Amino acid sequence: MLQSTQSEAKAVASAGFAEVYDPVKPYLAELDAFLQAQVEELEPEVQDQVRYVFGHSGKRLRPMLVAYSGWKGAAPECAAQLVKLGAIIELVHLATLVHDDILDEAETRHRQETAAKKFGPAAAVLIGDVLFAHALKLAAEFPTTEICRTVAQATARVCAGEIAQTYQRGEVNYDRDFYFRVIQLKTAELFEASCRLGAKVAGYSAEFCEAAGDFGRHLGIAYQIFDDLVDLYAEESMIGKTLGTDLEKGKFTLPLLLLLEQLSRKDREALLARYNAGDPIVAAEFIQRLHEFPIFETVVATFEEHLGQAASAIAPHAGLAPVPALQQIAELVRAQLGRIAQS
Amino acid sequence: MLQSTQSEAKAVASAGFAEVYDPVKPYLAELDAFLQAQVEELEPEVQDQVRYVFGHSGKRLRPMLVAYSGWKGAAPECAAQLVKLGAIIELVHLATLVHDDILDEAETRHRQETAAKKFGPAAAVLIGDVLFAHALKLAAEFPTTEICRTVAQATARVCAGEIAQTYQRGEVNYDRDFYFRVIQLKTAELFEASCRLGAKVAGYSAEFCEAAGDFGRHLGIAYQIFDDLVDLYAEESMIGKTLGTDLEKGKFTLPLLLLLEQLSRKDREALLARYNAGDPIVAAEFIQRLHEFPIFETVVATFEEHLGQAASAIAPHAGLAPVPALQQIAELVRAQLGRIAQS
Repeated sequence: MLQSTQSEAKAVASAGFAEVYDPVKPYLAELDAFLQAQVEELEPEVQDQVRYVFGHSGKRLRPMLVAYSGWKGAAPECAAQLVKLGAIIELVHLATLVHDDILDEAETRHRQETAAKKFGPAAAVLIGDVLFAHALKLAAEFPTTEICRTVAQATARVCAGEIAQTYQRGEVNYDRDFYFRVIQLKTAELFEASCRLGAKVAGYSAEFCEAAGDFGRHLGIAYQIFDDLVDLYAEESMIGKTLGTDLEKGKFTLPLLLLLEQLSRKDREALLARYNAGDPIVAAEFIQRLHEFPIFETVVATFEEHLGQAASAIAPHAGLAPVPALQQIAELVRAQLGRIAQS
Repeated sequence: MLQSTQSEAKAVASAGFAEVYDPVKPYLAELDAFLQAQVEELEPEVQDQVRYVFGHSGKRLRPMLVAYSGWKGAAPECAAQLVKLGAIIELVHLATLVHDDILDEAETRHRQETAAKKFGPAAAVLIGDVLFAHALKLAAEFPTTEICRTVAQATARVCAGEIAQTYQRGEVNYDRDFYFRVIQLKTAELFEASCRLGAKVAGYSAEFCEAAGDFGRHLGIAYQIFDDLVDLYAEESMIGKTLGTDLEKGKFTLPLLLLLEQLSRKDREALLARYNAGDPIVAAEFIQRLHEFPIFETVVATFEEHLGQAASAIAPHAGLAPVPALQQIAELVRAQLGRIAQS
């Protein structure tokens, strides 16, 4: 995945979307300063570990969605409430990453050791908990309970998505609906909350908040489809790791589900039997066979469909300041996929 | 610990405190019904696991504190808001237990398999997260953000306490202040929140809410001191497990810290050297040597001191309905210790 190899600035700049990234640079700088300041608010026993987790700077995609959904037309948009909201969403996201890395026994993320590896899985459980709890504490500082309720709900759904995926492992679930349900929960939920609450905090109408939420949800689905595609189709040199790691972890993503549908029953059963028996070279064979069918194209069409639905959701509000920027973000995600297609 | 061997009803009844337990029976029944109803509110993927966790019925001590702190004089006190608050606190408590059992690699709790053992540690991480998140979602249903803020803060502190303790393991921290800080965070914090918020939700004055919180904090400290004492001094037949399990996990509780202070430097260093080298019989020797000094009496005095401070905190409000019941709960905890002293 791209976040494994490139910083936010590089990834976005190289996709030629400086015009999307530049206006929120001051916002992202405020966000980082706010997160760093939060470390001091925590009990002394956890400060070093949390500071370490904050050092794993990801793409800050969710806070960027918060900033743009609450866009008021003036750049830089650094309203304190939007910074706090972005931090809350990022804290929830970081907490889920810390916990996911325990589940996946991942040793590195963003080219740094994971918290699970550095501090041990036991401490990582608690570090993730502290990040969750602090996010909710910040959410409770808003004047109404809506932020708290939405963030808590989104957190519960993200975890439910991970559980669904965890239970799927080992027993292949051919059901595409199940795949979409999992990515809705584990990825799209927080994208949706970012956009809906960003618009809300900025004072936009309930109608636009709903539209922004729909935009976020479809963007999240598209983004996860892209992420799953990269794992199977990118050049290895491009992503700096072995292809097929999702499959190794037992995650049957959309391309693989489509492949299983395309194969003859005999082929499918033989491949799955070898997979279930732990055949070490079966992952490579899965990847190779993907190219026998127009699976890439089918997945891209689904990806495009969700990007289209994202754009349509906010199109009726084209006069509002956030809309052009959000449309550009959708284009940025589309362009990322273009880079894989050319590889 | 007693919760490992006895149900709430039996433990409390056997201590002769039916008068404390009986009035809240309807409350506890409402609480259980409320918790069971919450299962339906969760995503289908997590319902079975959460139902299983709820089946591990503990002592419900924290909800009982909520009920009594919000006592209005009429029995049964089943005000819906107090039931919801009790459920929130219990959910946070259950979440920390689910996560603690991963850290401790515990296989049973309350004579049932732990979630970590039954569903695997990976799923247990997520089940704990779902419980936390749902607690905060319920907290956000109160009209103001205070419940959410307090519960989130308490959750963060409980986790910080566990982290402090986790990091202590392996390197003995002789500092009694450190011991008290850990139990303040990991145990007293949630007791304090139970009492303070119980009084708050019932509409008592800010002054009494603070007093109730102080009561809860000191009761929590006393309760943890008791719990740590049981691990070293009870009859094995009484607690149904080997003594010294805290020590095996690297937890140097108050009696052990006092022992290390009493031993000659030479004896202390020899014992710790063997402990650090993993000598399998050193735990038994620690326990045996405890009896050479008046350590039990010193710990009991500290326990009594905190029970006294708990009682003093609410004494000025003796005219309020919750106070007699809270004082009785403090007596119940005192009586539990009496049973160990006689053993």
